[in-house]
Formats: sequence, structure tokens, C-alpha cells
Amino acid sequence: MEVTRQNFKDSLTTVYSAIEEADFLAIDGEFSGISDGPNVSALTNGLDTPEERYMKLKKHSMDFLLFQFGLCTFTYDEAAYVIKTFNFYIFPKPFNRTSPDIKFICQSSSIDFLASQGFDFNKVFRHGIPYLNQEEEVQLREQYEERRNQSNGSGTTSYISPNANKGLGGVPEEHRDYIKRVMFPKGLHVETLETDKKERYIQISKVDDEERKRRERQKQEREQEELNDAVGFSRVIHAISKSGKLVVGHNMLLDVMHTIHQFYCVLPEDLNDFKEVTQCVFPRLLDTKLMATTQPFKELINNTSLAELQKQLKESPFKPPKVVTAGGFPSYDTAQEQLHEAGYDAYITGLCFISMANYLGTFLTPPKGHIPARSKLIEPFFNKLFLMRIIDIPYLNISGPDLQPKRDHVLYVTFPKEWKTSDLYQLFSAFGNIQVSWIDDTSAFVCLSQTDQVQIAMNTSRYAESYRIQTYAEYLQGRRHVRENQAQGSQAWGEDGWVKPHYAPVPGTAAGDYSMSPIQEETAEETSETAGGAWQQQPSANQSKKGRKVKKRKTDGEWCPF
Amino acid sequence: MEVTRQNFKDSLTTVYSAIEEADFLAIDGEFSGISDGPNVSALTNGLDTPEERYMKLKKHSMDFLLFQFGLCTFTYDEAAYVIKTFNFYIFPKPFNRTSPDIKFICQSSSIDFLASQGFDFNKVFRHGIPYLNQEEEVQLREQYEERRNQSNGSGTTSYISPNANKGLGGVPEEHRDYIKRVMFPKGLHVETLETDKKERYIQISKVDDEERKRRERQKQEREQEELNDAVGFSRVIHAISKSGKLVVGHNMLLDVMHTIHQFYCVLPEDLNDFKEVTQCVFPRLLDTKLMATTQPFKELINNTSLAELQKQLKESPFKPPKVVTAGGFPSYDTAQEQLHEAGYDAYITGLCFISMANYLGTFLTPPKGHIPARSKLIEPFFNKLFLMRIIDIPYLNISGPDLQPKRDHVLYVTFPKEWKTSDLYQLFSAFGNIQVSWIDDTSAFVCLSQTDQVQIAMNTSRYAESYRIQTYAEYLQGRRHVRENQAQGSQAWGEDGWVKPHYAPVPGTAAGDYSMSPIQEETAEETSETAGGAWQQQPSANQSKKGRKVKKRKTDGEWCPF
Repeated sequence: MEVTRQNFKDSLTTVYSAIEEADFLAIDGEFSGISDGPNVSALTNGLDTPEERYMKLKKHSMDFLLFQFGLCTFTYDEAAYVIKTFNFYIFPKPFNRTSPDIKFICQSSSIDFLASQGFDFNKVFRHGIPYLNQEEEVQLREQYEERRNQSNGSGTTSYISPNANKGLGGVPEEHRDYIKRVMFPKGLHVETLETDKKERYIQISKVDDEERKRRERQKQEREQEELNDAVGFSRVIHAISKSGKLVVGHNMLLDVMHTIHQFYCVLPEDLNDFKEVTQCVFPRLLDTKLMATTQPFKELINNTSLAELQKQLKESPFKPPKVVTAGGFPSYDTAQEQLHEAGYDAYITGLCFISMANYLGTFLTPPKGHIPARSKLIEPFFNKLFLMRIIDIPYLNISGPDLQPKRDHVLYVTFPKEWKTSDLYQLFSAFGNIQVSWIDDTSAFVCLSQTDQVQIAMNTSRYAESYRIQTYAEYLQGRRHVRENQAQGSQAWGEDGWVKPHYAPVPGTAAGDYSMSPIQEETAEETSETAGGAWQQQPSANQSKKGRKVKKRKTDGEWCPF
Repeated sequence: MEVTRQNFKDSLTTVYSAIEEADFLAIDGEFSGISDGPNVSALTNGLDTPEERYMKLKKHSMDFLLFQFGLCTFTYDEAAYVIKTFNFYIFPKPFNRTSPDIKFICQSSSIDFLASQGFDFNKVFRHGIPYLNQEEEVQLREQYEERRNQSNGSGTTSYISPNANKGLGGVPEEHRDYIKRVMFPKGLHVETLETDKKERYIQISKVDDEERKRRERQKQEREQEELNDAVGFSRVIHAISKSGKLVVGHNMLLDVMHTIHQFYCVLPEDLNDFKEVTQCVFPRLLDTKLMATTQPFKELINNTSLAELQKQLKESPFKPPKVVTAGGFPSYDTAQEQLHEAGYDAYITGLCFISMANYLGTFLTPPKGHIPARSKLIEPFFNKLFLMRIIDIPYLNISGPDLQPKRDHVLYVTFPKEWKTSDLYQLFSAFGNIQVSWIDDTSAFVCLSQTDQVQIAMNTSRYAESYRIQTYAEYLQGRRHVRENQAQGSQAWGEDGWVKPHYAPVPGTAAGDYSMSPIQEETAEETSETAGGAWQQQPSANQSKKGRKVKKRKTDGEWCPF
């Protein structure tokens, strides 16, 4: 169901009841871009800490607009899920002359990608639903109250008694005489109105006490409606929050960040504060990309991009879920892909979740064909959001401290800006396989395959002039003033694995060996799923030198064999 | 004529010949926004110097996208102008994987305004014509050359002789053996191609010398065409530049800045450098808003917004120009306004110019009905771009030093941020009429009506604690480190007037008395013309306090009588 400013109010009841009755919800967002700063390989360093990644996304991704929000509600009913899909078009249309005039960035590659998918920009910009975050909502409410108080003196009535001069506060000096002259003992109702052409005028009516109260009530109702209109799409997010329902997304960190940023509050500086806000807005989250890259799915699924995942989950040992489109809702055909329409993406995300959840049921004795969203089997996946391209931290843990993997084998290397990946391979050729994660033009992390080589590498570099090597610990120390609390409340990697599923783990696939999988499994195609294809972009032509460097970097994430 | 990526190449000949044959050109741009920083009243201070205004526009307006460019060519032919109107849709679609990934800002109020005018965003984003600035064009050309050199060794041929191993530079290691094995004495043509799905593959063909040369030529032609495609819309601007034709616009400073910024080069820091670039890109400019606010038009025209101007110029003493739409071009009906479509705006800008130019002919003896674009009568208006809302500098002089009005009667006042305009009026109540130009929350310029009051005002403020007053000279001195060269090459205001028309000046309307007119004549409506209505925006709701302040500021630009 397409929802724009034109049918938003009429659709709200349908939306609310769909959320209320649902077993779980799936969401997806489309944005006007991904990164306004570094290209994506710099934005997503393989050795980012969760704090660093959060800060980078907050800094470089939040000025884009989430302009399409897909919501698909799944309600289990007699052996099948009944689904209702909504495609909301979002645009911060200024609702009056004092409303915020939002500026947002568009990234050409993302816009071009969405255009190539048939995205309807006119629908967004002409008919998008407006929204306010909580602070703006409060401010607007206060504005209404202030205005009411101004025009009514005490703030309780717009009735003006003939002798109460203070009631004329809102009437311009030059009209006061006139108003006084035409006043009647019965009382007058004075109201400022606007014509269609936005010309303001004053309407004065003679009223008795009852009529006055009725008009007062009417006016307050109208104001409340205006306020609701301005809050707009945020009301849908409020309803999702209040429902406490499980919210499923695919590679959903950016979706969650954007949703909170746009409809709740400016994102907090601190990652822990962000986690707190997130738990408030989305009490239960599940990321199907994280699920698919975790045991027991990891071994069975070789491409976790949404489209590929959905295809694989139709095949054995998985089963495509039984779904029925609710009456009055348009049905999607997964054979006719409508990828990158938010509603469709939300829909197939939900399908993926069901297939994977049901697969977990096959491990039970006796096996179960249907695993509901509230099953304990699924809980291990709650509130863990997939972290793209981080080598050793698979997810952001929303409801607790993050994993803190040992990085004893990691070196921080700085060097002249002419260096390429091959120079680093040459430098470390004596130390076996290495893995390079570029930070910027003059620095990179280099992972050695064996920790005991670290000291040797450090020793040999002691007298080097063109480059400099630090251990990861030294690097962190150097940044301590930025991240003083980094070590607090963290959990050591590998101590007890990062997910403890309730089913029997497949031998030889303990959680610990997970560490390399997300990045190894990534392909150009899958990276496009969040982002209108922008992840695929190479650096710009005027960085042709860098372009070549990035091409060489393509080996990042694999243990280079030389 | 609508021109998109789809018909751009086929339309180019038509565009070029329209430019070539024209007597003059009219242009107009539509942008994705106006200011990414301060609201417009802060962006356009009434006492900005030309340098300050340029710097502000460069800083706060250039990150928007010029996404529709209107060009209307006017060719005089037997008592009527033949017109050809083009509406170019512009979008920086990345043309390959290494091309720049442009980010641009959208301002909701501007987008909403254009949406309300029926602007077709899908046409822009799906079918917009790409472009490169000169630097990007050079880089891309170098990229092609570099690639050619790489694959051909000497850069002259892709022919690989069986014994010339160095010719295999572009062939991946693992394929070299194969290539060697299948080589023939006759020679092979090796080429990297792409499928529709962007999969790369190598095509190897057996060729003789002649065929090889033919293919070489073909390849170079293809590359040249790719390059031309990438340069895209910039080619139209190059053609306009090269033609040296008079280019007419209405309130065109932003149009000129955007055009240069997007299609030529990043705008220079220094205003004089900008003037130099502008003269190179647009050797002859004429701003109809500046013309309309100058004698003899100033007295006859009370609203210089484009739409109003065009209406007034149809009436006596002006005459609507005779125009004929060229065959094959859609004709516009000025009765059915299509304002804010760039092509239409360019068209009526041209009409305004003709009416005003012809009016100048009535002052000649004998009077002349048609004044051509190359007439000396028009020269005084050349290269002077209207400066919005500057009290005493009506235009930016592109081909010479700017006016430097005396500002002896101006005070620079700093005060607590709670102050409103009324506080300033009260403070200066002893000094007659004042005029306030806000700079920011805690500072403003205050113009006294009489210069001899300045010293008295300074004296009375000596012991004030909450506020501080400086003369304009002191203020400038305080900023000298920023603007060390400000005094150089400037021209004193009023020395000989700023425009010396070749017709007899109407008595009592000497150029000197012009100084106040632009701002007095401005209305909310007219300010919208450049800018998709964004100039009309009030500050945001979360600045309600400031909003009230700004409302009070509405008296700016008038001599307040108290």
C-alpha cells in the first residue's frame, strides 16, 4: 500500500491496527545517499571499533534523507502469515512559515541507482509525508500554547469583555479603537485567519457564552489536528515503538540510525547513549544479515545480500514461508523482483526471517515447522545489528557491552602518501600473510597472521625513516584522550562466544571461528542493499591515483598468499 | 524544447546554431536550494560589501545543484524576434566507476516550492544531462590517454607482435600464456570490453595492419564520444562563452555563480578572481533587475520581480516586443504563466530586456522603435549584476572595481542576544530616524539619518556596559586582517554616478539618488524569483525567539519614523 501525504490520515487506522495485530514487523528505508565524506572503504575500516563506526556513520551518513520507509506486518493465522505492506513516502515539507527548513544531502550515485530502479522522486517531493522529531513536536506544541496565551490573556478564553483592555493584546494598535467601538455586551470572538493566498485577516463575531465555548473547543481541535499533521510520519514510528513488537531488518544499522535521527532525536554523541535511545525506540530488533552470517546459517548461506539470501532460503534445507496478502493490499511476487522499493525489501526481509526461524525448529525434538517470533530460539539474535566489514566484531550489541576482540596481531602503520597496498605487502613480506585495512592516504592497519611476529616487525622498523609502526595497543593509547572510557564495560572476544544458540552447534563451527566470515562473504552486489548502490562507487576521477590504490585494495579482507 | 540525456546529443546542433545566429541570449537556472547556513536575512545584510556578499554566497549557496537551465535565444528578423527556448535538465550522473560522485544539498522549502509549481524531479534524476567542469574534463582526458599508453606501450597502437611481450602489459598474468599460445604472425587486436551487465571481458581478434588501424581509429572515436558525453551539458556553456553573445538574466548573480561553479571551475576565493573568470565565461552580461531599478526605468516600475516586471513592461509607456516562436519549438503564452520553469523564465527575461531596450530608443532624435542588443544605449548596463538588499551598492561590477559608498553615518553595534530591533530604536531614539541591518544575534549595523549625529552617539555610549558602538571605519579596521586589500582599486561612490546613460537623464533623478531604491522596492514576492521561493522562508520553528525577532526586522530597509 502506497502512503503519501494525500492518504496518510485516512490510512493511519489501517497502519495502527496492522501493527497492533502483528506477530512481528519488518522495516526498510531508502536514503538519498550514504556518505558525504570519505568513500565507503574509508568509512568502513575493517578494524573500526563499534564506537568509531558509530561515530563515522553519525558524522557522514545522517545528513541524507530517509525518504521512503517500508513497513511489512506479519500476522500468523492458521498455518500462514498474513502480510500487510506499506510504502511510506517521506518529505520534510515545511508546514508553516516558522517550521524548520530542513536541508539534506543527495549523493549522485545513490540517486542514480534509485532512478535506475524506477524510484518515483516526484512522489517523494510532491506528496511526501512530513514529520517532526520529539523536540520539534514539543516546540510546536509550546508555540500553539504561547499563541493561545497571547491572544487570550489568561490563556483560557478568546472571549473579550467590553471593559477588559488587556484582552486586546493581540489586536494591532490601529484597530483597537474600531474593535472597542463595535463591541457588544454579549462578547466578541476575535480570530486571526488566513485566506488561501496566505493573506491574514481578522474575523470578529458576536457570540454568546455557549457559542464562545463551542468555538474555543473547535479551535483547539483544529490546532490539535494541525499538530498531528505536522508530527506526520513520526506517529507511525511512535506506534511501532509503543507496540514493543519484534522489528526485523536486513543490515539494519543505518535504517535504525536514520529512523531515530529523523523521527526521534538528533543522535547522541556517545554510543552507549545511542544504544539506550535505540532500546527505547525499538525494544526488540533482529537483523537478518547478522542471523544469516551466524551459525547454523553461516555454513549454508554463501551470499547474504538480501536478494541472494531470499533466493537461497527458498531452497532446501530451508522452506519458503507460507504467506497470504491481506485483503485490500497489493501482493508482491518474489519472482518479479522489486528490490530497493522499501516496502518490497521489508517484505522479503520478513520472509527471510521466517525461513531462518523455522529452520531452527528442525533442531528441536520433535522438530517444529513453525517457530513464532516470540520463541526463545530466536532470542540470541535480538538486538545485535550487523557491522559491515569489521573483521573481528560481527555486530553492534544494542542491549549490552560490545565484544572487544584481541588485536595483538594488529599493527598501525604510517607512511608516505605515495605508498600503495603492494608497498605494505613488500614491507611485511618476511612475516607471512598479512591483511591490510586502509585508514587514509598515509596510514593503515596491518594484521599479521601470527601474533609472535609482532615484536620482530616492531624491532625491524625501529630505524626506519619513511614509515612508522605502532602496536594496536600503542595506537589506542595515543587516542586515549578521545576514547577514555573505551575499556569500560567491555566483554572479551572469544571468552564465551558471541552468540549462544539454544540448538546444538554444528561441530567445528563454534562461534569463535566466525570472525572472518562477514567480510569474506561480501561481494559488490550485496553491499548495495542498504544503500541504493552507493557502496559500489569507486573514488572520483580526480583521484585517479587513489582509484588505482583502491583497486589494489580489493584484496583487503583476504589473507593474501605471497 | 525539453532537453534531457535522452535527446541531448541529437539536439546539440540545434542548440549550437540557435546560439550562433542569435542577437542575444537569455538564461535562467533553477536550484535545489539557496542557503545551507544562515537564513536569507542574515545571508543578505544591507551593508554587506561586495566581497562579503560574494563570500557568503560562495560559502552557503554553491553546494546546491543547478538542475534546470533555461536558455532562450533571440534573433531579430524583419520587425520581430524569432525565439528558441531550451529547457535543459541537469544531473551529475556518474558516467563510469571512477567518475566523481557529486553530493549536493536540497533545501526543503525550495524543493517544496518547485514541487508546487509542477517541477518534474523524475526528469532531472532519471534523465538529467551530466556535466564536467574543466578540471574534471582534463583529468578524464588524461585518464583515457594513460589507459591508451598502458595498453599499447608506446601509446600509438594496440597491435601486439608475437615477440613483443611488453605489449601484454594490460593482460592479466594468468592469461598471458594463453594469449601467447594463440597469437598469429599477422597480429592480434586485444580489447577489454564490457557486457550490458558491466562484466568485463577481453576480445581478441586476428587482424591485418589495415584492419588494425581502422579499429584503432574506431576506438579513439569511441573514446572521444565517451568524453563528449561526460562533458555533457558543459558543452552548451562553452558554446555560449565562445559566441561572445550578450547574455541576459534577471537577478542573475546566483545563476552566474552556479553556472561557473558547476560547469567551469570551483569558484575562486577572491572576488576579483571571480570577476576575471566571469568575464571569461560570460564576456557580456546584462541583468534586467538591475536595469529595471535604474533610471529611467526606476521611476516607472514599482515592482521588479520578474513576473511583475514582465506585466508592467506590456503597458504604456513600454511596448510588448514582437516575437515569433521558431518552427519546431513549443511556444509559451505569457498569459498562462509558467514561472519557475527555467526556459519560461529565460524567455520572459528576454522579453523584459527588449521592452526596456526599445524604450531607451524613444529618447533618441528621431525616436527609434527597435534597439538592437549591440546598441551603445545598452552598454551602460553591461556586466553589472544586481546585488539584492544592499542599501547603498546596487550592483556587482564584473568588469571593474566596485562602488565604495561612504558609510560615515553607519554604526556597528554589539549587544546582548536578548535585544530586539525595538531595543535599538529605543537606544538611538535621540538621533532621529535610524535604519537597522542585523548581522547576527548580538550585532547589527545602525544607519543614522545624519552623519553629524555619529560623534554624539559615540560619546553617549562611552560608559555603556551592555552594548558597544563602533564607527563603520573602526569596524572595518577591526576586520582589516581579513580584508587587507579592501581599499585597493575602489571607486568612490557618487563621484560621477555609477551609470552614465547615453540618453538625457530625467531632472531630479540623478544616478546619485538611486542608492536606496533596490531594497525599498523589494517585496516578499519578488525575492522568490531566483530561488524557488526559498527567500521567503522564515527561520525554523526551533528558533521561535529569533522568529519573532525577524518579524520585527521587517522594518529593515525603511526609515523608521520615531
